[in-house]
Amino acid sequence: MKQIISKAAIERLALYFRILKSAQEEGVEIISSEEIGKRTDFTPVQIRKDLALFGQFGMKGVGYFTNDLLNKIGNILGLNNHWKVAIIGIGHLGGALANYRNFANNGFKLTALFDKDEKVIGSKVHDLEISDVKDLKKIIKEREIQIGVITVPEAEAQGVANLLTDAGVKGIWNFAPTKLIVPNEIHLVNEDLAMDLSMLSYYISKN
Amino acid sequence: MKQIISKAAIERLALYFRILKSAQEEGVEIISSEEIGKRTDFTPVQIRKDLALFGQFGMKGVGYFTNDLLNKIGNILGLNNHWKVAIIGIGHLGGALANYRNFANNGFKLTALFDKDEKVIGSKVHDLEISDVKDLKKIIKEREIQIGVITVPEAEAQGVANLLTDAGVKGIWNFAPTKLIVPNEIHLVNEDLAMDLSMLSYYISKN
Repeated sequence: MKQIISKAAIERLALYFRILKSAQEEGVEIISSEEIGKRTDFTPVQIRKDLALFGQFGMKGVGYFTNDLLNKIGNILGLNNHWKVAIIGIGHLGGALANYRNFANNGFKLTALFDKDEKVIGSKVHDLEISDVKDLKKIIKEREIQIGVITVPEAEAQGVANLLTDAGVKGIWNFAPTKLIVPNEIHLVNEDLAMDLSMLSYYISKN
Repeated sequence: MKQIISKAAIERLALYFRILKSAQEEGVEIISSEEIGKRTDFTPVQIRKDLALFGQFGMKGVGYFTNDLLNKIGNILGLNNHWKVAIIGIGHLGGALANYRNFANNGFKLTALFDKDEKVIGSKVHDLEISDVKDLKKIIKEREIQIGVITVPEAEAQGVANLLTDAGVKGIWNFAPTKLIVPNEIHLVNEDLAMDLSMLSYYISKN
């Protein structure tokens, strides 16, 4: 399916995916739009409308087969592709992400870790060894990694983005608080923690 | 100033704040909208329009006084309030956030850390001791903490949100991938990493 859906709709689908994943783990085989509504903030009408966009998922008056719906939403979001992920910069944040269980829960496979610090190169996070960032291009190509997560300091982030681009990744998840320049064909998602914190500050100060 | 500005405008202001902070550190005393434009992705016209919303900041044909502008944007965003912050759940992510230098850069003061694990209670991150979550209410009140950061597992997040509400915080920054229910007067910002990762997956899979 190549239709472009709105950012807001993708966000809702990602939320449905999570809710359904929990329901699946609880052994819920059939789930109604009312139940999905109760677990999210959306009305059953909104949910049925969203899900109808992607074809006929449900059984009228009964509900949706959890596995089937999960599989279909996973396909739409590309989460069944088992994207391979590398993290560059294994400091506090990179280390926390290397331990982030939602990678696996969402079908991502953590496949390489990189750092430039001799003191951490060669050590392991779970079973994955931290490699020298000098070998980034070679390893990204060999392991067919599609997503790079940047958790290096601000001043080094563009350099790492260039290395990742050169190595042929398809997407970059950037945690460095800086504007990265990447070619159009590379998808960049910025995780801007300081900005969200500023947002919270603004709302609080208006009270 | 009690006027309500859009979420997009707040995001731009937060970005200007960061850019100006860097410029200040570089010793730039006067900065033009062209220069701010070069460091962001916005046109000088957009920038002048945004800044004009909040009164007359600049000198026509010269630029803005960096310190003055930084101070005014900081006031608008509430970043000059020196909000006191507590982190609850000092695992990988909570630990990474406890080491997050942007708290201080943005005028936030990390004032308490909490965990329920006997093994970490009493140990320190920099100079701040990890307290028992049982003492949360008392410590939040004593230290006049306004913001709670939730980095506990999903299943415990609502319980912690309730404790924070009861202790009287004004805002919650939630990293647990779950929908929290809090009273209207508490501002909640969700940091939904799994959702952003799903977004990236969607964009990549459309290529």
